[in-house]
Amino acid sequence: MIEERLRELGLALPAATAPVANYVPYVKHGAMLHISGQVSIDAHGQPITGRLGDELSVEEGAAAARRCALALVAQLGAADPGFARLERWMKLNVFVASAPGFTMQPQVANGASDLLVALFGDRGRHARSAVGVAMLPLGVAVEIDALVALR
Amino acid sequence: MIEERLRELGLALPAATAPVANYVPYVKHGAMLHISGQVSIDAHGQPITGRLGDELSVEEGAAAARRCALALVAQLGAADPGFARLERWMKLNVFVASAPGFTMQPQVANGASDLLVALFGDRGRHARSAVGVAMLPLGVAVEIDALVALR
Amino acid sequence: MIEERLRELGLALPAATAPVANYVPYVKHGAMLHISGQVSIDAHGQPITGRLGDELSVEEGAAAARRCALALVAQLGAADPGFARLERWMKLNVFVASAPGFTMQPQVANGASDLLVALFGDRGRHARSAVGVAMLPLGVAVEIDALVALR
Repeated sequence: MIEERLRELGLALPAATAPVANYVPYVKHGAMLHISGQVSIDAHGQPITGRLGDELSVEEGAAAARRCALALVAQLGAADPGFARLERWMKLNVFVASAPGFTMQPQVANGASDLLVALFGDRGRHARSAVGVAMLPLGVAVEIDALVALR
Repeated sequence: MIEERLRELGLALPAATAPVANYVPYVKHGAMLHISGQVSIDAHGQPITGRLGDELSVEEGAAAARRCALALVAQLGAADPGFARLERWMKLNVFVASAPGFTMQPQVANGASDLLVALFGDRGRHARSAVGVAMLPLGVAVEIDALVALR
Repeated sequence: MIEERLRELGLALPAATAPVANYVPYVKHGAMLHISGQVSIDAHGQPITGRLGDELSVEEGAAAARRCALALVAQLGAADPGFARLERWMKLNVFVASAPGFTMQPQVANGASDLLVALFGDRGRHARSAVGVAMLPLGVAVEIDALVALR
């Protein structure tokens, strides 16, 4: 049970919030679920802001990526109650706000990847891209979107 | 009719141009249509250039994103004449050329999202990522690619 | 035969390496293969680093993109031995480390696109996005991920 694993890890799912705009948090089509980019928001609802390489350490970046992953899990839970139809996390696109010279985007992205495998085991193992971008919405440190296969 | 909605909005589709390179404007496979990144080009065929946060305002950025969306619609129309097989706009990836400190990528991206919903209604509601990047081809302000589900 | 075309082009596939992290080099699901972002590594296993627009020329960038494409081909070969089930290269996402003012991301990305068409002919023609990003893992010049349709 994912809910139990979350508790064991001392984690609570954030609310699966809907964007206040003409797009949606996820689109389900056949067996494919596309989840919109989730930005790093802490457990109190505050954005985790700053660039890696000057304002944030790799550890802080990985923790921010973990929060993005938790938000993705919350969206999956909204799209697929009880995670009953989850087949596989397919692909993550990880965008890391990066100062010039910062090259550890993979270590930051591992914060998200590790959480998905901790929660979902082999079904959590995904393909991934991780790149360093100039700026992200709200000034957040990390944004991640996902493609999930459902049964 | 999409053509009628375009006229009501005072819009004309740009030509669905093919890239002069070894890639194609879209790939259709089964029910999935992947459309290549469309850069912001104005109604006269000139690139809309500049970075958000120093050279362009949010409103100008949103207008540039709207032009990208119009180019995506033109490609869809080339792939699916009369939009007869359109099932759903699934996902947009929105790349916004951003100066340091610019964090309103979602507001820029709304220029594209709003147009798709104005034209296609609920079929236009999509998942989305919006990130701020360093530089885009031709120095444009916005580039957007799309995944569309067909019947 | 792809192996023969590679020899004719004087190219050897790099080893399809697995990431040392909780993600995987590719995920196959039904007829869809998502390949993780491949960074530019030269024939000796050294990262091709530097930004386009200050440290690297367009030609050097295109050569780096070609190495990314070769790594993608190696991953496809690992997922689909002998390339027997390849239907179509569907989509490339090309991320180019770009200094301010560098706008020739498409010319860099052509290094990858040209190789795929040289190797696979029409099956190598893909949809594409090419954007300029701040920084990439290991400081590489180019990172590319791919979606491939299998029979």
